[in-house]
Amino acid sequence: MAQLTQLNGQLSVDGVRLRADLEALGRIGEVAGGGISRTSFSAADAQAREWYLERCAQAGLSVEVDGVGNMFVSAPADAHRHEPAVWSGSHIDTVPRGGRFDGAVGTVAALECVRRLHEAKVWLARPVRAVVYSDEEGNYSHLFGSSALVHGFTHAQLEALTGRDGDRFVDTFVAAGWDLDRATQTRLDPQAVHATVELHIEQGPQLEQRGDRIGVVTGIVGLGGATLTYRGRADHAGTTPMAMRRDALLAASALIVGLPDIARSVSDRAVVTVGVITVEPGGANVVPQTARLSVDFRDPDGERLAQLGRAITAAVGEVATRYGVQVDLDVAPVIAPCTLDERIQKIIAGAAAGRGLSASQLPSGAGHDSQNLATVAPTGMIFIPSTGGRSHCPQEHTTWQDIENGANVLLDTVTALAGR
Amino acid sequence: MAQLTQLNGQLSVDGVRLRADLEALGRIGEVAGGGISRTSFSAADAQAREWYLERCAQAGLSVEVDGVGNMFVSAPADAHRHEPAVWSGSHIDTVPRGGRFDGAVGTVAALECVRRLHEAKVWLARPVRAVVYSDEEGNYSHLFGSSALVHGFTHAQLEALTGRDGDRFVDTFVAAGWDLDRATQTRLDPQAVHATVELHIEQGPQLEQRGDRIGVVTGIVGLGGATLTYRGRADHAGTTPMAMRRDALLAASALIVGLPDIARSVSDRAVVTVGVITVEPGGANVVPQTARLSVDFRDPDGERLAQLGRAITAAVGEVATRYGVQVDLDVAPVIAPCTLDERIQKIIAGAAAGRGLSASQLPSGAGHDSQNLATVAPTGMIFIPSTGGRSHCPQEHTTWQDIENGANVLLDTVTALAGR
Repeated sequence: MAQLTQLNGQLSVDGVRLRADLEALGRIGEVAGGGISRTSFSAADAQAREWYLERCAQAGLSVEVDGVGNMFVSAPADAHRHEPAVWSGSHIDTVPRGGRFDGAVGTVAALECVRRLHEAKVWLARPVRAVVYSDEEGNYSHLFGSSALVHGFTHAQLEALTGRDGDRFVDTFVAAGWDLDRATQTRLDPQAVHATVELHIEQGPQLEQRGDRIGVVTGIVGLGGATLTYRGRADHAGTTPMAMRRDALLAASALIVGLPDIARSVSDRAVVTVGVITVEPGGANVVPQTARLSVDFRDPDGERLAQLGRAITAAVGEVATRYGVQVDLDVAPVIAPCTLDERIQKIIAGAAAGRGLSASQLPSGAGHDSQNLATVAPTGMIFIPSTGGRSHCPQEHTTWQDIENGANVLLDTVTALAGR
Repeated sequence: MAQLTQLNGQLSVDGVRLRADLEALGRIGEVAGGGISRTSFSAADAQAREWYLERCAQAGLSVEVDGVGNMFVSAPADAHRHEPAVWSGSHIDTVPRGGRFDGAVGTVAALECVRRLHEAKVWLARPVRAVVYSDEEGNYSHLFGSSALVHGFTHAQLEALTGRDGDRFVDTFVAAGWDLDRATQTRLDPQAVHATVELHIEQGPQLEQRGDRIGVVTGIVGLGGATLTYRGRADHAGTTPMAMRRDALLAASALIVGLPDIARSVSDRAVVTVGVITVEPGGANVVPQTARLSVDFRDPDGERLAQLGRAITAAVGEVATRYGVQVDLDVAPVIAPCTLDERIQKIIAGAAAGRGLSASQLPSGAGHDSQNLATVAPTGMIFIPSTGGRSHCPQEHTTWQDIENGANVLLDTVTALAGR
C-alpha cells in the first residue's frame, strides 16, 4: 500500500470520469422543456439510485443501504473497519425542474474520491465512506435522510409526511419496496463518524462576484418551515357579492404580499418564500374555499430566525382575522443555524492553496445535510461557484474546471482527515 | 288527445318522481368529503349522461345528441315535427365539489315536463323539447354547449381549449369517443326554436331574503374571463436575496389582493374572482417561476363590464412591471349582459300566481346557457330560492317543495308557450 505522505497533493481525481458520471446522472429525470425532476422516491430517483449502485459495482466498491435509503460506499479494504470513518457525500434527489449540479456534484465527487483512493491502493489511518443522503430536497421532509441518522423518525412521524404531489410518504415508500420498520430503526452511531465534509455548488452569487474558485463554508443558515391552510367558503363567483365572501385565496395572497416586508424587518439576510400553493375546489367560477401553502424562512442568526418565525405566525393569524377565514398552521421544528468546524475550514483552505486556487470564507444560505451531521461530528463544506448564482432551475451551472478543482480539494481534505 | 284548455293549471309534475330523479343524479360523481365533481367530459359526466338517456328510454322519449354533446329530448309525437319548438333545459355538469341542484334541477324538471305531457297525451300547437347543454360550467369553455349552438367552434378554437386539470379539450373529447368534425359542424337553426325557458336555483340570497317562492328573471349578468401567466425566475429559496428575486407568485398575489378594490371602483354589483392558481416548479424551497391564474369578472351593465375588464388588464400589467416579471394575458370574448323576454316574464308571473306562489323579479348574477339562447329566440328564466344563497359548494340547498313549485311553474310556462 502507498503511504499518504507520498500522495498528498499528488493524487488527483479523474476529471474526465467525473464529468462523464455527472453527464450520465444528469440524463436521469430530464423533463421536456428543460430541467431535471428527480424528486425523492420517484421513478427517476430509483433509476438514479440504480445507476449509482452500478457505478459502485463497476469500481469494485462495497455499498450499504440503510432503512431510509441513505447509501454508504467504501473501498473493500475499508468496508469492515470499525474505526470512526471520514464521511463525504451529498444527494441525488432534485427539486421539480431542478438543475444538474445541486447534490450531484458532491455525490459524484465523493464517489470519485473513494474510487481514486481504492484504485491508488492508498491505505489511510481511518476508513473513508462516500455517502448519498436520502430526500435532501424535502419531497417529504427537508434533509430527511440525515435527519433520520441524527434524530430518527417514529412510525407516527412517517405517517404524517406528505409529498409535493399530495401523496403520503408511507404509501409511496412501501410501494417502492422499502420497509417502514427498518426506516424507524435507522439511526447513526455517532462513534462511527470521525468527521464529515461535503462538496457543493454555492447556489448563490458570492464566489462569482469575488472571482474566487473555492469557498470555505463557515456555517449554514438556520431554516424554518411551515404549511398552512386558509379555510373560507366556496361560493358562486357570480352571485356572491364581494362583501359577503370568505375567499381563502384572497387571504393567502394578502399573506404572501406582506412577506418581503416581514423579512426586511428582521434582517437584510432574512428570506421568506412561498413555493407551493393549491386551492380547492379550483374552478374558475367558484370562490376558493381553501388555500394551502408552504412557507420557507431562513436567517443565518438563530435569534433572528426565531424572530422571523414569530413575525410570520403573527401575520398568518392577522390575515385570517382580516379576511374572515379560519387557518390551520403547522410549523415544522426549526433547523438551527450551524457553525462548521474551524479545523476543517483550515484544512480546506490549505488544500485550496496547495492546488493554487483562490479561496475565501462564506456562509451557506441553503440548508444541507452537513448541518445535521455537524451535530454529531466535526463537519466542513466546500463550495464552488454557481454561474449567476442560479440554482434549483434548469439554468443552474458550474464549469467542469471548477467541479474538478472542487473534487481535488475534497480529495485532499478527506485524505488529510482520514490520514491523521 | 287532451286539449290544452282542459289541462292548463291542472296538469302537474310528479313531485315524488322529480325528487327520486334528482336524488339518483346527485349520487353520480359524489366525492369523499362532500360535494359532487361531475365536470364535463369526465367519467362522472359520462355516467350522468348514460343515466339521463336511460331515464328518457324508460319514459319512451326520443333523444338526439349533437356534435358537442347537447342532448334534445322529445315525446315521440313531437320528435319529427318541424314547427319551431319550445325548448327547456339546463345542464348536468358541475364545478369541482359542487352541489346537487345547480343545473340538475332545471334538467330534471324539463325532462319531467316532457314526460308528463307525453303521459297525459297532451297535444300542443308546438313541439316541446327538453335540452341538456354541454359543459355549462366551463371545464373547457363557459357555456360551451349553447355557445356551439349560437356561434359554433372552429377546429382551431377547439384545439386551444384547456381543462381545469390542464388537459387539452381535443384529447379528452376524442378519447371519450366524440368526433371533432361533428363538433365543428354543430350549429343551431334559429328557425327551429320558438322560445326557450330554463328553471334554475337562484344561487344567491335575494328570494330567501324577500320570502318569495318564485323569481322571474329580468336579465343575466355580463361575464368576462381571462387566464394569465406571470413568468419570473426559479431561484433557490435560501441563497437568493429578496431584492434579487423575480417571484411569479408574489406578483400574482399582488394582483389578487387588489381585485376587490377594482370591483368596488366600478360598481357595487361588480364581482371579480380568482378561482384557479397553479405555480411552477412548485417546490417549497424554490422561488416560483410561473404562476397561472384565472380571472372571472361580472357586472349587470355592459359599459361597466367593459370598464371592469380594462381596469383588470391595466392592473395585470402594472403588477408585472412592479415585480419585474413577464406576463401573458389571454382575455376571452366578453359575454354581454342580456335582457330576458318581457312576454315570457309575464307568462311566468301569471303561472306563479295561478299556483298561488309569491313571485318577484330579479336579475341573475350567474351566467346561464339562456343568455346564449336569448340571442336567437325569446327566452325566459325561472328562479327558486337557494338556502343561504350558497351555490357551487356541497352546502348548496333548495327545498323539495320549492323544486316541485318551480317545476310546475315551468310546466305551465312551457305549455302556455307551446299552446298558443
